[in-house]
Amino acid sequence: MTDLIPIIQEKLDQAAGLLNEHHLDCWLTFVRETSQVYDPALNLILGCGLTWESALIVSRSGRKVAIVGRFDADNVRRLGAYDEVIGYDHSIGDALLAQLHQINPSGIGLNYSLSNPGADGLTFGMYARLTRLLAGTPYTDRFVSAEEVTRRLRERKSARELERIRRAIDVTQQVYAELLSQPLTGMSERQVHALAGELVARHGCEFAWERAGNPIVNAGPDSAIGHGMPGDLVVQPGQIVHFDMGLRCEGYCSDLQRVVYVRREGESDVPEEVSRAWQACRAALEAGRAAVKPGVLGWQVDAVARAELTRQGYPEYMHAFGHHVGQNAHDGGSVLGPQWDKYGDLPNKPIEAGSVFAIELGVMVASYGYIGIEENVLVTEAGAEYLSAPQTEIWQQ
Amino acid sequence: MTDLIPIIQEKLDQAAGLLNEHHLDCWLTFVRETSQVYDPALNLILGCGLTWESALIVSRSGRKVAIVGRFDADNVRRLGAYDEVIGYDHSIGDALLAQLHQINPSGIGLNYSLSNPGADGLTFGMYARLTRLLAGTPYTDRFVSAEEVTRRLRERKSARELERIRRAIDVTQQVYAELLSQPLTGMSERQVHALAGELVARHGCEFAWERAGNPIVNAGPDSAIGHGMPGDLVVQPGQIVHFDMGLRCEGYCSDLQRVVYVRREGESDVPEEVSRAWQACRAALEAGRAAVKPGVLGWQVDAVARAELTRQGYPEYMHAFGHHVGQNAHDGGSVLGPQWDKYGDLPNKPIEAGSVFAIELGVMVASYGYIGIEENVLVTEAGAEYLSAPQTEIWQQ
Repeated sequence: MTDLIPIIQEKLDQAAGLLNEHHLDCWLTFVRETSQVYDPALNLILGCGLTWESALIVSRSGRKVAIVGRFDADNVRRLGAYDEVIGYDHSIGDALLAQLHQINPSGIGLNYSLSNPGADGLTFGMYARLTRLLAGTPYTDRFVSAEEVTRRLRERKSARELERIRRAIDVTQQVYAELLSQPLTGMSERQVHALAGELVARHGCEFAWERAGNPIVNAGPDSAIGHGMPGDLVVQPGQIVHFDMGLRCEGYCSDLQRVVYVRREGESDVPEEVSRAWQACRAALEAGRAAVKPGVLGWQVDAVARAELTRQGYPEYMHAFGHHVGQNAHDGGSVLGPQWDKYGDLPNKPIEAGSVFAIELGVMVASYGYIGIEENVLVTEAGAEYLSAPQTEIWQQ
Repeated sequence: MTDLIPIIQEKLDQAAGLLNEHHLDCWLTFVRETSQVYDPALNLILGCGLTWESALIVSRSGRKVAIVGRFDADNVRRLGAYDEVIGYDHSIGDALLAQLHQINPSGIGLNYSLSNPGADGLTFGMYARLTRLLAGTPYTDRFVSAEEVTRRLRERKSARELERIRRAIDVTQQVYAELLSQPLTGMSERQVHALAGELVARHGCEFAWERAGNPIVNAGPDSAIGHGMPGDLVVQPGQIVHFDMGLRCEGYCSDLQRVVYVRREGESDVPEEVSRAWQACRAALEAGRAAVKPGVLGWQVDAVARAELTRQGYPEYMHAFGHHVGQNAHDGGSVLGPQWDKYGDLPNKPIEAGSVFAIELGVMVASYGYIGIEENVLVTEAGAEYLSAPQTEIWQQ
């Protein structure tokens, strides 16, 4: 987490601005033993772990206070990002109350959300504990969700964050190129997966989600689509090989899918039905991308891409068209997705400039395999511009 | 997390036994986007990540059901540890309700706890979400904390878990030996820390807590004690050098402190006051260890060690005497610690055979540095036996 430290100061300042924008007096992140349960907000405002009950408070005035166990205090002081760092021995209670009395907030933003995992790092036990620590004060009636503040804090990328995302995308593209510079025929999914691991290590990056399923490698039509782990299927001529890989470099991620067709002997090009499905995917992705504009709601973009794919005669994809990318491959607190129950309120948020999305969809081509297409884009006032070099045709071997 | 898979099946079976022991009809782990917020229970019952809202249900009958998003289902099926794996597209609601109707539990254990972080992986937002999904059913009135079940699941080590902990301890001891086979004089804390990183990598293990503060390296009296990160202080003759290092090998941890005295020119032994402080620490550690017996409460053990140290004229340590070690360096749901507010109910639990503790304490010796002593022990019916080879005297260079 140390490489996040240069980002922390600018995100803390951004947080103070967002509190003003949302008329919220203070934001309280309340955590403990972060090696066991890690509130994702910590990567935006701290960048190191904490042991005992700890309160990180940002006020609308811009003042930042950390109350932490005595043995954690030096680390937080070294960050230099907090105006005051208070270390305690027996109980966090007194110092926490003193700070709240000083701020006297009309609303205290906490990290909970029904549908946004990145804004939901407060555990139920810690919520109960906070309620108990503040029992008998007016503050327990002033808790509100800090979701809209932390969502924007995560979604509005700073120049430094964007630079790191660009680097992660760049490395991912290099790894794809290196991986595909050799013939895949005869390699098992597992072998391709292992080789990707070596290449990524050489670039000094890590995988953006669990290594076991990163990259996803699907050789042909019998491979399980989704978040499955690579298996013993061997790449054979006449197959589509599909990859889904996300890397994290200096704390920021990429998320890209790529597709290769392995020609049969005598074939000079991709079979007609594979090519048609590819074109349909590209057209649907481009239609969705063109629909991305600040102010448009997430579900509206998804609907455009979904309609284009089905209009071309293919079944709709069973996931969202787009998700934010940032410190996580699935980041932010809104999706470009359908209004399905599992997405909660996430598809109903307006798109903002400065956001980075992965946009994706796919089609299963019977007898050949899965075509999945995924690019990363930056939202500007003018629309969504590619951060990745988009795959415009199926690669061939 | 893949290396946890051999452990998952035995922990799931153990969980069913614990439900019977505690007369709890079912245990429900309710999570989503585990790459953002990771419920520590998942390392005991799943060992891989999940994307959409997911319910892992263990019933008193021993039946285990996983309800997960469609694209995660194959991974969970491959584990082979669940009797039924249900994949869904739009909403988890119907399948979850159907399962609960089938079990008709009088109590539903959830992962929340006021004082045990390892039993508190349910977020406040997910609790609210669950309440909404089950609105209008009798189940919302049947939620209870699964803390006592999950605490014991984590604390009662299986033979396989013990074997892995022994290996982590063994590697840690080897790394200490390799690290101290060269003269420390002239090296900065940061350099020693970097060297430890190389040695650990060669053994194929990882650090059990944040790398930045692992190992802790304190050169002499001016170094910050606690969870501080190694700095620019350079080891000099006449200093105590103190280390605190924990490793994780195949998912299980060690946590050991070691102390070296660097002799001044002409010195043939450790100075008298350093030696006296060391002896007091050893005596207090041994007194505490001797007090460890199944059934004794955690605070009672702490009180014995604390009293021995202060009886010898040293100030009491400002932390707990002992904490569980397992998948985390700070593991389990009870401590051998004082009844301070920050420890909540953790010091009031009875010790059980089969538990592994790190026991530790320390003394600051003015002008020389910090003596910290920490060993790992296994609780048997007869008491606490060392898993580590205890450091019985200050090492010298």
